[in-house]
Amino acid sequence: MQPIRLGIIGFGTVASGLVSILATQAHGSRAKIAQTFTIQKIAVRDLSRPRVVATGDIPLTDDPFELVQDPNIDVVVELMGGTTLARDLVEQAIRNGKHIVTANKALLALHGNELFALAEQQGVQVYFEAAVAGGVPIIKALREGLIANDIDWLAGIINGTGNYILTEMKKPGAVFEQVLAKAQELGYAEADPTYDVEGIDAAHKLTILASLAFGIELAFSRVYTEGISQVSADDVRFAQAFGYEIKHLGIAAKEPSGYSLRVHPALVTKTVLLADVNGVMNAVLVHGDQVGATMLYGPGAGGAATASAVMADLYDLGRLWQAGTSHFVPPLGRYTADLKATATILNIDEIHTGFYVRCLVEDHPGMLAAISQTLADFDISIEHLHQEPISHDDQANQALLAFTTNKVREATFNLALAKLEALDGMLGKINKIRMSDF
Amino acid sequence: MQPIRLGIIGFGTVASGLVSILATQAHGSRAKIAQTFTIQKIAVRDLSRPRVVATGDIPLTDDPFELVQDPNIDVVVELMGGTTLARDLVEQAIRNGKHIVTANKALLALHGNELFALAEQQGVQVYFEAAVAGGVPIIKALREGLIANDIDWLAGIINGTGNYILTEMKKPGAVFEQVLAKAQELGYAEADPTYDVEGIDAAHKLTILASLAFGIELAFSRVYTEGISQVSADDVRFAQAFGYEIKHLGIAAKEPSGYSLRVHPALVTKTVLLADVNGVMNAVLVHGDQVGATMLYGPGAGGAATASAVMADLYDLGRLWQAGTSHFVPPLGRYTADLKATATILNIDEIHTGFYVRCLVEDHPGMLAAISQTLADFDISIEHLHQEPISHDDQANQALLAFTTNKVREATFNLALAKLEALDGMLGKINKIRMSDF
Repeated sequence: MQPIRLGIIGFGTVASGLVSILATQAHGSRAKIAQTFTIQKIAVRDLSRPRVVATGDIPLTDDPFELVQDPNIDVVVELMGGTTLARDLVEQAIRNGKHIVTANKALLALHGNELFALAEQQGVQVYFEAAVAGGVPIIKALREGLIANDIDWLAGIINGTGNYILTEMKKPGAVFEQVLAKAQELGYAEADPTYDVEGIDAAHKLTILASLAFGIELAFSRVYTEGISQVSADDVRFAQAFGYEIKHLGIAAKEPSGYSLRVHPALVTKTVLLADVNGVMNAVLVHGDQVGATMLYGPGAGGAATASAVMADLYDLGRLWQAGTSHFVPPLGRYTADLKATATILNIDEIHTGFYVRCLVEDHPGMLAAISQTLADFDISIEHLHQEPISHDDQANQALLAFTTNKVREATFNLALAKLEALDGMLGKINKIRMSDF
Repeated sequence: MQPIRLGIIGFGTVASGLVSILATQAHGSRAKIAQTFTIQKIAVRDLSRPRVVATGDIPLTDDPFELVQDPNIDVVVELMGGTTLARDLVEQAIRNGKHIVTANKALLALHGNELFALAEQQGVQVYFEAAVAGGVPIIKALREGLIANDIDWLAGIINGTGNYILTEMKKPGAVFEQVLAKAQELGYAEADPTYDVEGIDAAHKLTILASLAFGIELAFSRVYTEGISQVSADDVRFAQAFGYEIKHLGIAAKEPSGYSLRVHPALVTKTVLLADVNGVMNAVLVHGDQVGATMLYGPGAGGAATASAVMADLYDLGRLWQAGTSHFVPPLGRYTADLKATATILNIDEIHTGFYVRCLVEDHPGMLAAISQTLADFDISIEHLHQEPISHDDQANQALLAFTTNKVREATFNLALAKLEALDGMLGKINKIRMSDF
């Protein structure tokens, strides 16, 4: 049988993991699938750089366009990242009739609609299990395993760096900047941590999950994205006292008036399993109309874990290849024409959610009454409350006040917040964090 | 396009759930898959019984053999349960060239080797996503999503009834018999709870998971099976004090000298996510050589949840049907000839594990020394220890003693246990529970 000929673009940790896996599984996988694979060529950025895995007689090139034009390559495995050059390469590869396997969430979140449509037109497949939650087979679960469900909502911890930072913030005396520095030292966070810390990476992934869940076109630009840099150790501590953990979530929910797509820190009840997902681990909680709540958990990054997802895509492709069929599961579970193109995505102002609030106030008896009354004017009630006098001498008569509210329209809450900030005795800006309601 | 014609055997909660799903998805699923389904006939036990779902003009019969012989049925969906009649029916259906979708773990655990071989010979597929952990797509995850991994071990909470009982046992004053009665009242446990409580149902499921994980033939008769009826509220309490939860686990592990397949209560460290899986929920933690630890969680039972897994199998089958291919994923991930038929399954005596021990002793200063010395003679050391004087007047000078040990060969531990039971001052039988080591 003719092996499937792979061209790999990029040679970072995931590609290295894949080359390692293929070294033992390219020809040794007969028991699992009667299809072999061969690496035809690898495109690298710098030919002179030393490699962490042996490449044997696999030719390397520093011109990735060689691969997408090579008639002897059947599948392009895009592991270079980025959204400009990668987009050109993937598009050309599809036009040249090559199947695509990619781990590039940014590329798909931004340009997936065009790329998937083009692939459908060209009769080739685009697989991307590795793009969300690394080794966790969440794409397959949403697209195939839970296919009989209308998904009501999903909520995921889909950025390991962010989850590591929030986990470390639970330690007494933790300070965001120091925890971030430690994450960088350990290699969990990039030198420029913006993508992880500000939620952009999670928003890319949420975009993909939401399309799979709801059958809507990819809508990255409509995802509300808020990072974790405003979460303080006090917030983590107060949240825990109220019975919650703070997690950086990607949430996609079907609401009566549209879809809510958002990435932000959120208080998660400790009784929910998602609250116990710590460190660099990822987890996605999915609620389907038939199945109820189900969760997939595992490593969201790492060369070997992510490569194992890429390899699973190759096995899937291998079976189609063997069968000589072009009847495959569409990338987003629906054919392009059946994706909802005009889905209403709610503005963050329109969502209904509970809030956690932390503020610094003058510590006098009337303060709480003033706050309660201001909230009551907007029909907002306080659920949990915690007040803590500041112990430093120079801040006597000050207190940290934290409370949670019932569910309220965000726009309404923001009006109330403006009134609170204008109250006599309110010192500085108020910090708010949304509550999750599952 | 010709619809796939289904014959459903059995009309309990899962079949009712499936009929409900098909009522909306049989023809309305074009966006997900360009294949329709039609229910040709349903075989029921008693024609006169009222149905919880409308069957419209679907013919019912009380002769299931009608279905397996009907040339107008393409797929037999076996949801009747049992291992005798169900076996005959499934075997005949396969011989008649029909694909099978089943939720019957007992059937597969006991007769899967023959049935899968026959299906392979006949060129038909046997799907069984619903057989393990209900709505959770664990079969697909092991067979496809994690296919690039050599699975080192897996551990699952795969019986919701057992997990419900152990969760309830955490409540102060809980007594096993009362908790079981409550589970029966709520419909979580059968009138005859043996299959759930004694671990037989979990052993059926573990058999299937182990074959998928390791590529070995189904070996139900070699699974060590121990129930939860010996777990007391004291054990649950002591385990928690030591930092553990007691869970009824199905464990399949690759050991240096063979495979260990076992179902028994186990102490799980509280820091492991599996320890937080409560109530009737199921979860399977899988450790692969590439991916590391990953876990799938969700409802293990319930009509709609389980039916959604059956429906996912039908969608998979629909795609093959559409493609007109018989190149499909083999039921256990490997072709029959490639399954290890002579895999060594370890006897429970041969495993190495830590133990939790609870015993009633005379409360005098020399007792602990005697116990420690007896254990030391077998090179066993105590890790945690908790001693509690009995407070009833008539049992003065007695104490409950609980401790955990290091890892030791089970056969060795049993020798030590016999010596402990023979000690002066040891009152009655000693209770032991294995520790999980992940």
